[in-house]
Amino acid sequence: MSTEKCFAKGSAAPGPVPKDRLRLYSMRFCPFAQRTILVLNVKGIKYDTVNINLTDKPDWFLEKNPLGLVPTLETPAGEVIYESLITCDYLDEAYPEKKLLPAPPFAKAQQKMMLEHFSKVALYIYKIPKGRMKDQDVSGLEAELKEMFTRLNEHLLKTKTKFLGGDAITMIDYMLWPFFERFEMAELHHFLDDTPELKKWTEHMLEDPAVKSILYSVDAHRGFFKGYAGGNPNYDYGLEEKTN
Amino acid sequence: MSTEKCFAKGSAAPGPVPKDRLRLYSMRFCPFAQRTILVLNVKGIKYDTVNINLTDKPDWFLEKNPLGLVPTLETPAGEVIYESLITCDYLDEAYPEKKLLPAPPFAKAQQKMMLEHFSKVALYIYKIPKGRMKDQDVSGLEAELKEMFTRLNEHLLKTKTKFLGGDAITMIDYMLWPFFERFEMAELHHFLDDTPELKKWTEHMLEDPAVKSILYSVDAHRGFFKGYAGGNPNYDYGLEEKTN
Repeated sequence: MSTEKCFAKGSAAPGPVPKDRLRLYSMRFCPFAQRTILVLNVKGIKYDTVNINLTDKPDWFLEKNPLGLVPTLETPAGEVIYESLITCDYLDEAYPEKKLLPAPPFAKAQQKMMLEHFSKVALYIYKIPKGRMKDQDVSGLEAELKEMFTRLNEHLLKTKTKFLGGDAITMIDYMLWPFFERFEMAELHHFLDDTPELKKWTEHMLEDPAVKSILYSVDAHRGFFKGYAGGNPNYDYGLEEKTN
Repeated sequence: MSTEKCFAKGSAAPGPVPKDRLRLYSMRFCPFAQRTILVLNVKGIKYDTVNINLTDKPDWFLEKNPLGLVPTLETPAGEVIYESLITCDYLDEAYPEKKLLPAPPFAKAQQKMMLEHFSKVALYIYKIPKGRMKDQDVSGLEAELKEMFTRLNEHLLKTKTKFLGGDAITMIDYMLWPFFERFEMAELHHFLDDTPELKKWTEHMLEDPAVKSILYSVDAHRGFFKGYAGGNPNYDYGLEEKTN
């Protein structure tokens, strides 16, 4: 696509997916879509991106995915895949060159269980800052988050590995990363000071080429979040300065 | 195990898992554990069952699975796997003889998406009868369930297949079945009269040997549900008449 700007209701549908690539329907600041982008980028898969206005979705998008969720993948054959974890597993199987999930069934199950354990991390990055903005008591949520950090830290202490699934970066790291990228935006990153192994993990993650390929500044995250939390998300935040 | 009776807090832990089999920690009326049992049975995997008192869990069980959930699988090597869908995917990969998930990545993704769409079915079988017992208005939930049935029926009309993933029974059928088995208990089965293809599907399912291998009568489901809904579940319901 020639534009990163989002497509809203009433916009003309993009043309068919070219034969040599995938298409990703996305939203620039969506951490779930970022999971899929990380997997696409680490595998070097060719794709174009169509960003969607999630509060005013085009009809042609809802026809492709009645749930209207991003990330949604579309293949040149018209196959449509959604739900971030399903898209990532799909990509890992359909493009098996750089496998991100381990092959042994138990090792794979371990990553899936870990993801179940820690998937609640997605809640905290939005709920805690939103609560603070409204002067609500968020100490319970903060305690839960601290406990989650402690458990992840203990896991890394036990495995003595650089990454969550071993010394090489694997699927579990990429699935959790988008939320960690937003902890500074949510003013929660100081919690990492009490969990040094987990902090080291974030430092290793920041050195990864795929992570670097789709990394927003804290200012950009904050800028988007401000509008989002106020009920008026600007999906094109930061694009105003650019020319298309 | 020599008993189906549940293990509660304070009970002696069962011995180690014998070398030639798996162990399933279960609860006799749990539809999620039934998913795992269906996969174990269809594949002819050797396993023993340890039923857990879910309101008064043994410490040795919580040591194995801190979440305290059933189904939990344990291997002779001490590997522990939980969350019903994760256990079923694990079994399908670790025991690949009778594969239940399709091999092509898109076909597999389709089953996972379908499961996401219809996983809410688990809510209705408990929420609707509980609401009725308390004279609550359950018409909204009933409308949601009807809509879900209509969509499943449309899927079967479109695919013109006996089962949800094709003419052979596959993972998606077994994952949804435990909830359908409970619709008569929940007095919701008459909704199937408006969705004849889906009704035919339930009839095909009832002919399947694995489904038949772990099928409770409507009376047994009702008997257990009565205590469960009243906050006093009898996990050994129906075992009283038997001698061990």
